[in-house]
Amino acid sequence: MKQVERVEQLKEVFQTKIYEFCKVCCRLTSYQIDITTENQYLTSLYAEHQGNCLIFKATSPSASKMKLLETELSRTVGELIELRLQHQDSIAAFLSWLTLELFSLQTMA
Amino acid sequence: MKQVERVEQLKEVFQTKIYEFCKVCCRLTSYQIDITTENQYLTSLYAEHQGNCLIFKATSPSASKMKLLETELSRTVGELIELRLQHQDSIAAFLSWLTLELFSLQTMA
Repeated sequence: MKQVERVEQLKEVFQTKIYEFCKVCCRLTSYQIDITTENQYLTSLYAEHQGNCLIFKATSPSASKMKLLETELSRTVGELIELRLQHQDSIAAFLSWLTLELFSLQTMA
Repeated sequence: MKQVERVEQLKEVFQTKIYEFCKVCCRLTSYQIDITTENQYLTSLYAEHQGNCLIFKATSPSASKMKLLETELSRTVGELIELRLQHQDSIAAFLSWLTLELFSLQTMA
């Protein structure tokens, strides 16, 4: 196989794998994760509006600390963010709670 | 740049991107997702034993339906799986509930 073809084949395999990973991640956690240069955008499957996302910004080089930026969705759940995110210091616990809240709203509707 | 170098560079970029995605996914959701040929292995940050994982097997080609296989962790939470996973038909709701349960156990300990 020519090297040019090999490069194209590799790109295709990588894109397929990345797509599969994103799809599985979304199916399992309800969150579609998009990583941009500086931020992580999360869109929940259960959010009322599809564009309604959360944006986390890494505040340390290894992304061990992340800050939630203000969006429409973060303002909606603003009062409970302090407890779940700041006091418990767990993004995962906050996002899990949010998934259950949004899921509950969607299934009650 | 030689094509051989281009291939190596692509592999490196891909591995870095996948690693970053896995790390961010784990930090945000508490789950480390490993995709194998047929199954998706999930290890929770909050599980008592590090090797204690959940295994989902796709039962449809597009992975729109997935089945939870039996592991030590699935047996531990067995009684509540039926409600959360089968009746509510949401893996994300089940995994979110599990994260909050494991988080609560860990922070109470």
